[in-house]
Amino acid sequence: MDCLISRFGDHVGEPVTVRGWTHNVRSSGSIAFLQLRDGSGFTQAVVSKEKVDEASWLAATSATIESSVVIMGTVSAHPKKEEVYELQATAVELLQRAEEYPIGKKEHGPDFLLDNRHLWLRAPSQWAIQRIRDTIIHATYDWMRDHDFVKIDAPIFTPNACEGTTELFEVDYFEDRKAYLTQSGQLYLEAAIASVGRCFDFGPVFRAEKSKTRRHLIEFWMMDAEAAFVDHAGNMDIQEQLISFIVGQVLTRRRTELQILERDVKPLENVSPPFYRITHAEAVAKLNELGSDIGEMDDLGADDETLLTRQFDKPLFIEKYPAAVKAFYMKRDTSDPTRVLNSDLLAPEGYGEIIGGSQREDDYDALVARVREHNLPEHAFQWYLDLRRYGSVPHSGFGYGLERIVAWICGLPHVRETIPFPRLLNRLEP
Amino acid sequence: MDCLISRFGDHVGEPVTVRGWTHNVRSSGSIAFLQLRDGSGFTQAVVSKEKVDEASWLAATSATIESSVVIMGTVSAHPKKEEVYELQATAVELLQRAEEYPIGKKEHGPDFLLDNRHLWLRAPSQWAIQRIRDTIIHATYDWMRDHDFVKIDAPIFTPNACEGTTELFEVDYFEDRKAYLTQSGQLYLEAAIASVGRCFDFGPVFRAEKSKTRRHLIEFWMMDAEAAFVDHAGNMDIQEQLISFIVGQVLTRRRTELQILERDVKPLENVSPPFYRITHAEAVAKLNELGSDIGEMDDLGADDETLLTRQFDKPLFIEKYPAAVKAFYMKRDTSDPTRVLNSDLLAPEGYGEIIGGSQREDDYDALVARVREHNLPEHAFQWYLDLRRYGSVPHSGFGYGLERIVAWICGLPHVRETIPFPRLLNRLEP
Repeated sequence: MDCLISRFGDHVGEPVTVRGWTHNVRSSGSIAFLQLRDGSGFTQAVVSKEKVDEASWLAATSATIESSVVIMGTVSAHPKKEEVYELQATAVELLQRAEEYPIGKKEHGPDFLLDNRHLWLRAPSQWAIQRIRDTIIHATYDWMRDHDFVKIDAPIFTPNACEGTTELFEVDYFEDRKAYLTQSGQLYLEAAIASVGRCFDFGPVFRAEKSKTRRHLIEFWMMDAEAAFVDHAGNMDIQEQLISFIVGQVLTRRRTELQILERDVKPLENVSPPFYRITHAEAVAKLNELGSDIGEMDDLGADDETLLTRQFDKPLFIEKYPAAVKAFYMKRDTSDPTRVLNSDLLAPEGYGEIIGGSQREDDYDALVARVREHNLPEHAFQWYLDLRRYGSVPHSGFGYGLERIVAWICGLPHVRETIPFPRLLNRLEP
Repeated sequence: MDCLISRFGDHVGEPVTVRGWTHNVRSSGSIAFLQLRDGSGFTQAVVSKEKVDEASWLAATSATIESSVVIMGTVSAHPKKEEVYELQATAVELLQRAEEYPIGKKEHGPDFLLDNRHLWLRAPSQWAIQRIRDTIIHATYDWMRDHDFVKIDAPIFTPNACEGTTELFEVDYFEDRKAYLTQSGQLYLEAAIASVGRCFDFGPVFRAEKSKTRRHLIEFWMMDAEAAFVDHAGNMDIQEQLISFIVGQVLTRRRTELQILERDVKPLENVSPPFYRITHAEAVAKLNELGSDIGEMDDLGADDETLLTRQFDKPLFIEKYPAAVKAFYMKRDTSDPTRVLNSDLLAPEGYGEIIGGSQREDDYDALVARVREHNLPEHAFQWYLDLRRYGSVPHSGFGYGLERIVAWICGLPHVRETIPFPRLLNRLEP
């Protein structure tokens, strides 16, 4: 019977067939040990020359790193380690003997590994990251369904920019028109809430940004959520519930993977509502104390975020930024109209921004004024302004950057490993 | 207490607050009926002049179509109809009185409706379609997780075409390079199976195709799945299980929405394994009987698919197409090397292709030969060929077109309504 390595615990003492790859091979005399992986997990197959036929022994001893194999055997429990199992082989078939594998045990530089991304994905660390990413994605879908958010796929091709025209990728559409690749589905979701009440999208977005940092990719995945009848405070409540649920799911379902990454899970176990909430003014004061020269009405830079989040033991909302540094659609704070009802959610341990959100301006006249102040093409925003003419409601939303959340939860220094095939300034391949 | 209309059944006799939009309004004398929707469902609020204060009565009677309102009241069960509830209003607040709504009860042409897509989404039919689309998406994620498929997000920016260079959108990348927008994540998933065993992606794909048909969009969503150690027959088993699960989830969770669309659910209730399986040769023979002039080694056209699927009462696999009309990566049928181990899955009731899949060529030499036969740039496929050098395994996969599945399950004649903001030859807005 075919059996995934991850299910060995249910089949101790039973004969099974495992199909996978030899991660490593060593033999001494009449015994060979094949480190085996099948996509679900890792195990060791023990092949004893006396217990298998000649063809099997030959297959086992000629298997190279990353050869594909089919191994029949009996599942045995490790005599000392709990939840560790081995396969006592009864037959070994070599499907394809791999050529000398380019990724060895020595240290490789990031360029070499990224050039071989199609193979590097097989490394235990990369396997673990992708499975954690998968769990973060599923947790998001589950949470959204359980909280009445409907998936609304915003378009990728857009006729104009959501927040200005810089850093946009341009495409020749039909009839001599230009299309631009989306940077956020938000405006479209604002239309959809008047149909479905609450909605989210989750798809790729694109930034033609020439900066090389450990937090930026040219192509990355973003989850936008938008809800009618939710105000600024309610918006933060939703975010902290969602993020706490995601972290909880990873801790429950991906313990093995976190161990492979040597991730200290203590800071993750601490992630539960309420998160810290401070104002931008408080953040600036704190940063000045810590030695930053950030000004009262400045946006936070990446260094500021790092500095600040090292001071906190769980995620931190910074709310009410100066209107001047934020997008046109954010609703002003009535108690201080120079500020907006927004929040950035910063992950602890120096990770910085993972979510940006705000209550949206729902008043037609105020929004028209903002569009003009920002010198945006008014005709292109007619449909968006329409939403304030036909049943406008208070509403809020936010967007999370998947790769930043993966990097934080996995404890990675750079986002480039968080996505299967990263697209960087100098990298479009494989 | 705030209560979604969809949860009225649990709150009969209780005081609730509903926040939503007045879908329609009529009043006669001292009673007003507000047709109300809140994104979760539809209900009627009954406002009696005697039972509410003056401000509430004024709000109720001045509400226009698509005004936003907050109504407090008591949930009551319809005296005759099961599972139908009303709201006996005690207070009405008008949040924003909508201007005259452009979409009326008269028939509008598709261009007008698509120009107003940001508002048209609110129509009950469009609400129902998007909620069914949401359920199809969630069902897919659930099924994939339950069957050990890991989500692997294939890149959108690709350096070359998967199946030739026609119909590709081109983007200026950095350093004078061109990138192309993906048409399928398949090749990347083939790399990832050697890490995670089984995987899927689910994202937007792009086709710069000038044909206008009821089955085509410029930008649409595709789910690709790929599995190691699965052969052609196993590949079809996976597809019929997945599709049956999806249809079952819609039937269970979206009865109301199917009713709004007046969808005959009988054909959907019939969707369970096994699906019909015929060869391409059998399909051609059948089509010739039915009057089509399709040749022995021709691909099926859309008309052929429509003609054929009207003859079957559940989905139909057509397998083993001529190699000449299919992609280079498909494995040849050893019993007839002019044919490939592929299958197209056709939805019944005239809908036609919803999935294309195949076993993939896993032999290095055979694949190199195919790349050359198809005049593909060999250097660009080096990484893909690598997968056959390091632990090649038999493997198969398939891709489904989300919008075609939505169209079929909803019983829609055209895919343009199946996606929130369709992108067509002449349409990039809103």
